Amino acid sequence: MVIKMKNNKLKNMIFFDNASTTRVDIRVYEEMLPFFTEYYGNPSSFHDIGQFVNDKIEESRTRVASLIGAVEEEIYFTSCGTESNNFALWGIARAYRDTGNHIITSSTEHYSILNPLKEMEREGYKVTIVPVDKYGFVNPEDIRKAVTNQTVLVSVMHANNEIGTIQNLKEISNVVKEAGIVFHSDGIAASGIIPVSVKDIGVDAYSFSSQQMYGPKGAAALYIKKGIKIRPLLIGGIQEKGRRAGTENVPSIIGFGKAAEIAGLELEKNLKYITGLRDRLISGIHKSIDKIKLNGHPVERLPGNVHIAYEFVEGESIILMLNIQGIAAASGSSCASHALKSSHVLLAIKLPPALANGSVLFSIGKYNTQDEVDKVLETLPPIIKRLREMSPLYK
Amino acid sequence: MVIKMKNNKLKNMIFFDNASTTRVDIRVYEEMLPFFTEYYGNPSSFHDIGQFVNDKIEESRTRVASLIGAVEEEIYFTSCGTESNNFALWGIARAYRDTGNHIITSSTEHYSILNPLKEMEREGYKVTIVPVDKYGFVNPEDIRKAVTNQTVLVSVMHANNEIGTIQNLKEISNVVKEAGIVFHSDGIAASGIIPVSVKDIGVDAYSFSSQQMYGPKGAAALYIKKGIKIRPLLIGGIQEKGRRAGTENVPSIIGFGKAAEIAGLELEKNLKYITGLRDRLISGIHKSIDKIKLNGHPVERLPGNVHIAYEFVEGESIILMLNIQGIAAASGSSCASHALKSSHVLLAIKLPPALANGSVLFSIGKYNTQDEVDKVLETLPPIIKRLREMSPLYK
Repeated sequence: MVIKMKNNKLKNMIFFDNASTTRVDIRVYEEMLPFFTEYYGNPSSFHDIGQFVNDKIEESRTRVASLIGAVEEEIYFTSCGTESNNFALWGIARAYRDTGNHIITSSTEHYSILNPLKEMEREGYKVTIVPVDKYGFVNPEDIRKAVTNQTVLVSVMHANNEIGTIQNLKEISNVVKEAGIVFHSDGIAASGIIPVSVKDIGVDAYSFSSQQMYGPKGAAALYIKKGIKIRPLLIGGIQEKGRRAGTENVPSIIGFGKAAEIAGLELEKNLKYITGLRDRLISGIHKSIDKIKLNGHPVERLPGNVHIAYEFVEGESIILMLNIQGIAAASGSSCASHALKSSHVLLAIKLPPALANGSVLFSIGKYNTQDEVDKVLETLPPIIKRLREMSPLYK
Repeated sequence: MVIKMKNNKLKNMIFFDNASTTRVDIRVYEEMLPFFTEYYGNPSSFHDIGQFVNDKIEESRTRVASLIGAVEEEIYFTSCGTESNNFALWGIARAYRDTGNHIITSSTEHYSILNPLKEMEREGYKVTIVPVDKYGFVNPEDIRKAVTNQTVLVSVMHANNEIGTIQNLKEISNVVKEAGIVFHSDGIAASGIIPVSVKDIGVDAYSFSSQQMYGPKGAAALYIKKGIKIRPLLIGGIQEKGRRAGTENVPSIIGFGKAAEIAGLELEKNLKYITGLRDRLISGIHKSIDKIKLNGHPVERLPGNVHIAYEFVEGESIILMLNIQGIAAASGSSCASHALKSSHVLLAIKLPPALANGSVLFSIGKYNTQDEVDKVLETLPPIIKRLREMSPLYK
């Protein structure tokens, strides 16, 4: 009974946490369902059930490849974005270990890049972390200066999952390719949301994930350009041409394929719609609340990203009060949300700690409505006012 | 239209490939469904949707722990059995790297143990592979002799996924614990099928998986006994107390929890039922076909395992002809099935190559019926007869 009531409350919540994960599109959901109880066979099995499932996985691979302008032979399925990023780092570094042991990355990468690099340092690799400017942009010249004759890999994310800044990967790619180094990008926050062509931006490896584009959890991919060497991270059977062992998560991969297809077909429409909601929310907040700062770049940002710092208040307190009012938002990356410390991204863009701790991310998705945006614009100002009145620092 | 017809044919197939994966139990399926489109939030998010999902994951953890006699704090969710095995090997070896660099395993382990160990050898670890006897049993004395002052980990599987032999882990554990070494077992083929108590068998780490017990693909677990050190394999965010980064595959984990609960409650009933079908199939084949050999131990074997070598024929040919008749069987591990070479397990038990290549595995599950077993008993003898008549070696 209590759980039932709680569930109804949850169903009515307004979800502005689409950067952390998205609701599965009903068309994706329906495509996945037969693979649990009907076409449940193992795609590595020789019999017809296995081969049917295997064919469906290959169809998914084609759809997923198509979203980023790759071909299916360049797509390797993994279990999540974190695995794709870990696979890229360990796999490429191990494959080129004879050439060198130096890796370059940036200070605003996701933890699934920065933390495995710490482990790799323990194992003898050298890592250089280049800074970003106040918007979160990497200066390609900093990459150029960091390159040594031991450098084998550069990894710079496409769009930042917290502040939404979209990196100019093409400029970085020019520097990296000139130096003859492998270039990886974490595209998890970008793919399915903004147009991505791995050929145009010039990356050799690209991570992306289903659950950020209205697909199910449990499936992600790593694009590896033909000719680029990589060693497997998960090792065992012959799945994914020996580059990712383990029985394929068939329903999630099928769902990922459908989600990628839909994302591609409806990208322009969603981009326009979500950008409209974003700009309405940003300008509305600017009109009704003073002493605030929009983090990230004002224009070169993800369509659904509204990441704002509110002076004199704690972001966590805002989240909690929004939650009571039925609005789900985030204070930063969900992968770090239990840590209760300032976001490394906000520190990297040199936001003063007081502002960093007062930041909240509304991440807008295709299922959000103008009414929901207006609900935030109605709910947020009194929350900020009340919290500021409680703050000893607010005059 | 063509696909539709093919699908109907698939739905009528008799599935005797339950060792590779199982049909999702309808009760499991129903429990998972709301987590795609209703409770789709990220369990690391602070808001109520996230926290509700997080609570549900913890309920699943308790159910999964209970199946093997562990407590919830000792269970770490992964994406598949291969990841659990890779995590155990790399994670434990790295955590005890200061103590030593030697690992002991057996010759009939799954590829997700043997192949990562090859990669670890490239990275400076030393590996000893102990032999097995004709049934697939490891002699604990061989483990004792292999131990050096550098040994940090012993990994021996609980039940073999191909020949079905159930190892006497307790005897091996006694030797390993006497030497003060960490003991891991791959329990993927055993858990949910035969009773498992990690305390009674004395393991420090144990891999097991959802998809072998009528749960969904995309979820597995590694049990790590309290006090045993392990470093993460997938590194990034704070999920699974920092031991396995990456957004949790919520629906699959929920499904795994339900599957583990059902497996525990119905284990004795299924064990008896499946063993009955197995023995009917084995004795029926013995009565109707000569020049055959049951691989693995006649008694200490998995309840659903019917792994038999047929002289003068190729296992692959039998599989293909069974497939035409609507019966799905396997020639060995699905993780190796594309390799088209003799199973390393059959070579390890010293089965002559001719017999190894003539082996077929019928793996029986709870959804199989006596009628289906009788269909095999009716279909298989003429297939073997016809193939033998085509064989130049058959007199």
